Amino acid sequence: MKAYKNMSRDELLTLKESLEKEFKVEEAKGLSMNMARGKPGASQLVLSMPMLDCINSKSDMNTLLGNDTRNYGDLDGIGECRQLMADMMEVKKENVIVCGNSSLNIMYDTVSRSMTQGVNGSTPWCKLDKVKFLCPVPGYDRHFKITEFFGIEMINIPMNEDGPDMDLVEEYVNNDAAVKGIWCVPKYSNPTGISYSDEVVKRFANLKPKAEDFRIFWDNAYCIHHIYDDVQDEILNILDECEKAGNPDMVYIFASTSKVTFPGSGVSAIATSKENMKYIMKQMTVQTIGHDKINQLRHVRFFKDIDGLKVHMKKHGELLRPKFEAVLDILDSELAGLEIGSWIKPRGGYFISFDAMPGCAKSIVEKCKKLGVVLTGAGATYPYGNDPEDSNIRIAPSFPTPEEMVEATKIFVLCVKLAAVEKLLGQ
Amino acid sequence: MKAYKNMSRDELLTLKESLEKEFKVEEAKGLSMNMARGKPGASQLVLSMPMLDCINSKSDMNTLLGNDTRNYGDLDGIGECRQLMADMMEVKKENVIVCGNSSLNIMYDTVSRSMTQGVNGSTPWCKLDKVKFLCPVPGYDRHFKITEFFGIEMINIPMNEDGPDMDLVEEYVNNDAAVKGIWCVPKYSNPTGISYSDEVVKRFANLKPKAEDFRIFWDNAYCIHHIYDDVQDEILNILDECEKAGNPDMVYIFASTSKVTFPGSGVSAIATSKENMKYIMKQMTVQTIGHDKINQLRHVRFFKDIDGLKVHMKKHGELLRPKFEAVLDILDSELAGLEIGSWIKPRGGYFISFDAMPGCAKSIVEKCKKLGVVLTGAGATYPYGNDPEDSNIRIAPSFPTPEEMVEATKIFVLCVKLAAVEKLLGQ
Repeated sequence: MKAYKNMSRDELLTLKESLEKEFKVEEAKGLSMNMARGKPGASQLVLSMPMLDCINSKSDMNTLLGNDTRNYGDLDGIGECRQLMADMMEVKKENVIVCGNSSLNIMYDTVSRSMTQGVNGSTPWCKLDKVKFLCPVPGYDRHFKITEFFGIEMINIPMNEDGPDMDLVEEYVNNDAAVKGIWCVPKYSNPTGISYSDEVVKRFANLKPKAEDFRIFWDNAYCIHHIYDDVQDEILNILDECEKAGNPDMVYIFASTSKVTFPGSGVSAIATSKENMKYIMKQMTVQTIGHDKINQLRHVRFFKDIDGLKVHMKKHGELLRPKFEAVLDILDSELAGLEIGSWIKPRGGYFISFDAMPGCAKSIVEKCKKLGVVLTGAGATYPYGNDPEDSNIRIAPSFPTPEEMVEATKIFVLCVKLAAVEKLLGQ
Repeated sequence: MKAYKNMSRDELLTLKESLEKEFKVEEAKGLSMNMARGKPGASQLVLSMPMLDCINSKSDMNTLLGNDTRNYGDLDGIGECRQLMADMMEVKKENVIVCGNSSLNIMYDTVSRSMTQGVNGSTPWCKLDKVKFLCPVPGYDRHFKITEFFGIEMINIPMNEDGPDMDLVEEYVNNDAAVKGIWCVPKYSNPTGISYSDEVVKRFANLKPKAEDFRIFWDNAYCIHHIYDDVQDEILNILDECEKAGNPDMVYIFASTSKVTFPGSGVSAIATSKENMKYIMKQMTVQTIGHDKINQLRHVRFFKDIDGLKVHMKKHGELLRPKFEAVLDILDSELAGLEIGSWIKPRGGYFISFDAMPGCAKSIVEKCKKLGVVLTGAGATYPYGNDPEDSNIRIAPSFPTPEEMVEATKIFVLCVKLAAVEKLLGQ
């Protein structure tokens, strides 16, 4: 394979002509595929259908403690579901509050509460002139939308292969009192797929925030979402590490079963220190009389315990693996050596992050769209939708079938090539 | 029956002695009953158990439009559930957003959004020196807790038998730009049980708010919660009336199935103008990827349509009626003519509101507690938990059995008498 940058103008022009021919052939097919969002595929949803039989009109609707899940009560979640989510999040049950169907909603509420009430007694953020959040990039667009919505200034932090650039994180957090938070997806990160090293987790736990109300928003969305049986990432327990470091209240951990059972009909949870929980419950008791406890019971009856959860996630992994491999194989075979893009092979999560030649991402996404393949918008993985390099593209292989993924990735690769050639030709 | 106030001191002392004897007898029984919260009773929960069979592993999980309820999508609710909730709320489907399990949560979010974002582009309330809400009293404690939580000043508005004192409401709303909202339970009001007259609804719709961001928070919690078949309250459609009056955006209507199916596992909805919906959706799209659509589908499959819903509510009414009547019969037979308390006989809803002799409510609640009957805390029906007359007590007859209600009401009546005698004796 000859790197495109080493090609002559004539070679590039010839290549362009042949790529454009291919493009026209694909365009004529009128395909329609979606690699935009981390949506589970149909075969994954089938895995959880038996859960819907676990609660029926003949079921015992009481919790282990004898509380009726059909009525008001258990604001912090039913005990057995708190235990299940605690085991999933690798924390203690007494540090867990089980909420509704969406961990994103808990994150939103956590930021919203900080805006109007402050954090554990601090000045409400809405009363401050300036509030800043650190945003490891590329990252999760919906995190950035929350902080943008509340007018919080977002600062890009580059992601390395073992987590965010911690020198920069420390510099900001330890010196700027306006820096109140950081968004993290510590395991199988969205979208890069990397997991934070022990050193990174420890450096997080040992931050010396200038702001007493600084918090780490630790979205452990993919904590049990492995793709392989043999190679699995594990990360250090941030709650323990923070406690050891004398920063027990510095972190909020979020997780849900949205990509375990059903997106929209799962259960979500927050894990944090007892002190933080006190303030969260003080708000939650005003916000709602309680979350959906029947659905919590449904989940517990289905999985029984963490072992049941792991067996279930293995099945998800088996369905996702061929889709990821389809993408990665084609990227490898078609793009290796061309020096027009790079990517990381993740061991879990929902995404493959692709870095195109700078200045090409928008063009690639647009070209793919013309051929019927919808990708996450270029720039979406950056705050304000602004990727300064116009390089990163998030590929979500979960929703299409493996066959469709092959088809879609071939189209993607074609567009990557064409965009690169056009760029090199100065077009 | 001789009114207590007309009794001589000796008569009162003799009465007190005999009441105290009764009190000791009851105390020895060591009862334990709860009339504190509007919780459906066990027999009511049984009514909705068949709903849990409506969705199982063999079910078609698609909406009528073919959307998979198991996956992300349909942020404003699945179409057929929007229709069902629209029919329940007597509004058009296109004015309804179906949300999660709690209408209280929608109200909280609505106030919270106004605090941080303003209302349809107005200045965020958190940036204002003073924000005020009108609170018809007695009212729903959880409404007042929301506005209290956000530091909003609450102003008591007396409730008449046809709704809030509208002279006062108009005076405040039309002249004070700091008045941004009013809490209303327009039908089978919590706790008085009265419904707003057509004139009251029209006067609401024709308010001329000084503040452009003034909104009516119309919590139609008991819209289909009749107790009787033959005498049922109906109220005017506030959304229509507001539109007619040239105030289309002035009202948010809330409702849920918490007291139709299962508290905590129902569905909730907000109905409002298209313009308001635009701003709500702008926020909701940041807050969550979507609500529990499987549970929405479960509700639709169970009820089919508004007629199914009405048949179901008739069964609830049949179960609640004897409980309400048990209380009302005993109040009538034991207290009529004594002039130590008054009450309204509701035709729906969840509560009986009792006005004791001024200065007696706390004492009655305390005495009941000693005898094992838990009532809503005295004062809870007022902002800041402060009933200036110390008079109102909310009785929630739904949770105990009818037999328990008889027992509990006898105890309640005993405590009302004893508290009145003590008061009249200046003790």
